[in-house]
Amino acid sequence: MSVGDLLRAPRLTVVNVGLAEFSAPAQAAGAEVTELDWRPPAAGDAALGWKLASLVGDPAIDDANRRVLERVLAVQPRWVDVRPAAEVLPSLAEQRLLLHAGPPIGWERMCGPMRAAVLGAALLEGWADTPERAELLAATGKIEFAPCHDFAMVGPMAGIISASQPLIVVEDAVTGLRAYSNLNEGRGRCLRYGALGDDVLHRLRWMSDRLGPSLQAAVRSLAEPINLKTVIAQAVQMGDECHSRNNAASALLTRQLAAPLARQTDLGGIEALEFLAGNDYWFLNFSMAAGKLAMTAGHGVDRSTVVTAYARNGVEVGLRVSGLGQEWFTAPAPPVDGLYFPGYGPGDANPDIGDSAIAEVYGLGGFALAAAPAIVGFVGGTTQDAVRTSVDMGAITVGRHRDVQLPALEFAGSPVGIDVRAVLDSGIRPAITTGIAHRTPGIGQIGAGITHMPVDCFLAALRAFPGES
Amino acid sequence: MSVGDLLRAPRLTVVNVGLAEFSAPAQAAGAEVTELDWRPPAAGDAALGWKLASLVGDPAIDDANRRVLERVLAVQPRWVDVRPAAEVLPSLAEQRLLLHAGPPIGWERMCGPMRAAVLGAALLEGWADTPERAELLAATGKIEFAPCHDFAMVGPMAGIISASQPLIVVEDAVTGLRAYSNLNEGRGRCLRYGALGDDVLHRLRWMSDRLGPSLQAAVRSLAEPINLKTVIAQAVQMGDECHSRNNAASALLTRQLAAPLARQTDLGGIEALEFLAGNDYWFLNFSMAAGKLAMTAGHGVDRSTVVTAYARNGVEVGLRVSGLGQEWFTAPAPPVDGLYFPGYGPGDANPDIGDSAIAEVYGLGGFALAAAPAIVGFVGGTTQDAVRTSVDMGAITVGRHRDVQLPALEFAGSPVGIDVRAVLDSGIRPAITTGIAHRTPGIGQIGAGITHMPVDCFLAALRAFPGES
Repeated sequence: MSVGDLLRAPRLTVVNVGLAEFSAPAQAAGAEVTELDWRPPAAGDAALGWKLASLVGDPAIDDANRRVLERVLAVQPRWVDVRPAAEVLPSLAEQRLLLHAGPPIGWERMCGPMRAAVLGAALLEGWADTPERAELLAATGKIEFAPCHDFAMVGPMAGIISASQPLIVVEDAVTGLRAYSNLNEGRGRCLRYGALGDDVLHRLRWMSDRLGPSLQAAVRSLAEPINLKTVIAQAVQMGDECHSRNNAASALLTRQLAAPLARQTDLGGIEALEFLAGNDYWFLNFSMAAGKLAMTAGHGVDRSTVVTAYARNGVEVGLRVSGLGQEWFTAPAPPVDGLYFPGYGPGDANPDIGDSAIAEVYGLGGFALAAAPAIVGFVGGTTQDAVRTSVDMGAITVGRHRDVQLPALEFAGSPVGIDVRAVLDSGIRPAITTGIAHRTPGIGQIGAGITHMPVDCFLAALRAFPGES
Repeated sequence: MSVGDLLRAPRLTVVNVGLAEFSAPAQAAGAEVTELDWRPPAAGDAALGWKLASLVGDPAIDDANRRVLERVLAVQPRWVDVRPAAEVLPSLAEQRLLLHAGPPIGWERMCGPMRAAVLGAALLEGWADTPERAELLAATGKIEFAPCHDFAMVGPMAGIISASQPLIVVEDAVTGLRAYSNLNEGRGRCLRYGALGDDVLHRLRWMSDRLGPSLQAAVRSLAEPINLKTVIAQAVQMGDECHSRNNAASALLTRQLAAPLARQTDLGGIEALEFLAGNDYWFLNFSMAAGKLAMTAGHGVDRSTVVTAYARNGVEVGLRVSGLGQEWFTAPAPPVDGLYFPGYGPGDANPDIGDSAIAEVYGLGGFALAAAPAIVGFVGGTTQDAVRTSVDMGAITVGRHRDVQLPALEFAGSPVGIDVRAVLDSGIRPAITTGIAHRTPGIGQIGAGITHMPVDCFLAALRAFPGES
């Protein structure tokens, strides 16, 4: 029997390990080929490979990771308040401090959209009256910068949080932990995408003067705070993955707030309802604050290899690991595979940016992609691709959500708790759904798509993990 | 080669037509068996079978059905107004007329929940001051009855529409057609399920006095009427099939109405928003009115075998066919396979009831079940069962929605336009998702589940269709 005969024999199945090119001859001959997407562990680094092998299956690590997962899942993120950022963190006003997305970065290294957002925030706070004067302040060290994550805060895209911005306050009653995000500006020309102009500033001022106060009064008037995990669980039954698609959660939250907001006529409640009626991204910042709160509860467990934060400043991306303290393990920010608005293309795109990937760290976004196949269409994918992504992510997590369930996977919990070991052992990179900002300051959003966390962050974390290598 | 050898040979595939028992020996021998769920055409009626054979593939019928589909899909159901029912149909007040769900039925033959709803409506309208006096009126011919469908109206469950109830008015701008439904009371103890009591009447009075007027003012204040098909299309991306699950559509519609309602403080707008925040069934009656409008546009095309209405009065179910005038082709109402609230079981259940199956006729409900796998859990089914149901329904329809797409089927349009021929030729009965009412008057909803349209309705329609048999 020749190889050709063999390949043409009924039901012959070929398993191809490694390069996809090797499959072609077998497929041409009619065989059923299963591509085994095998990559060498620890990205082929031999010394790290031995270290990884010693950590995989380590019962102390497994146990630490289980404890992290239990802490994360136990958090009930309740939306308890809306407050101006300077009330939560006075140094924002007192020290001219601006918070930004991602790992630490100074003005000199900031990408275009983040610089534009810095200028916008300086104008918003009245620190300067022209973008040029604002730039002078920033370039001469008259503005301080720090990551949002340093203060249990998260901001999408550029993630610039300044003194007068209203913040969502989320609290876990049992641990007493709190986390924060700013309010979502909607789509189109927004500060977070680095758009700059009177329209952007006008909206931000209205958000500080009217939206924030009316929301504060409304949320304080509720008999019980809204549990955001309940909203997330419902929304994941309704086509959201609560990172790049928030249509259901936004509508559910707005419906719940409608009567309390309607009572705040003098503070701007009706304007707020008009704004919310058109903002399908409204819930994103709530999802992020909830994720930050839950992952903060899971941070600081000795020997745990679970990722508790992943964030991008548009130049670098970085992750934190529960058992590895406050260090960011970084890599250059990758590009985003996406659908571009008419007139734009990959050459216009800023690399991956924003704190919003805390959603993925919390088992939403790319991990819950099976719930939101509409997103995959952005990159020419199918519903089956979306389902497969959630299945793949289940191979690199330490467990599954109990309340947040994926209908397309027969209501299995969404995978949660990225294990550094599993990522390096499998070669499966965590998927992220995200928006795309123009790299030039002042323009704004030009698309949306999917990217992945670079393996180098995980290698850096593995290097830092206690143990021989 | 023995039969055993044959069965053990690789890739042998057995197609079993008919009784499932015949598959067992082949399966035991390791063969891959495809069960062909074959049933004799026209339910085994030989004469009708010949007639059916002459109609299947008839190009004149195919053409008529295509025209029906185009008319149905062309309808843009815009929500233009809310008006008291007696303004739309004065005889409701002038002649003490009550409309009911399903084909025509008199007081003597009405089921328990419909009788209870009649008594409640008589109390609501002030025709009697006790249920006993109301019953005397009904039993002595002092109340007139007619089907909702006679007036382009539809009511869920008992479907009792009386003079003071506010009606949703839906209009298609091109044809000028209008259709109507009443407002949804929410879940729990409701008139439509035959619950009776001060709580039920109190809510209905509030709906007439406050909800209706505030909604009327809000909807009239919109710059553009809301296109309900747009809401349906979004909701089917969000886990709704817009019959038994309306969570997304209800939230979307409420969000859109929130600011306009908030402005109607004096008329009850804020109370309305409180009510809407807790009503996940709110959109059902809008879905029904939209479906009735679209199917009315498709009715009356000569030679068409497309079902344009299917409705149940709790005793009988009946359907209308585009090419067969106003006649109802009826059969006894079937039971519903469902999940019961604690303390109730199938013995307590009224047979299938309500006009709401107009949703299925319009390609929603069971036809869009792939979008709403949560519903299938009611009857112990899986997500795959839900997907399969939509696939099966595609075999008995004349086409697919363009705007209403099913994510789980790679965004294929939901199947729409039930073809009497295809149902009888395939033996596939149309699936219906529905609520379950207690058979005893006055109790209300006791569960929810899935049922099917009986084949006898389709046989009756085939008998009436012009042609030899």
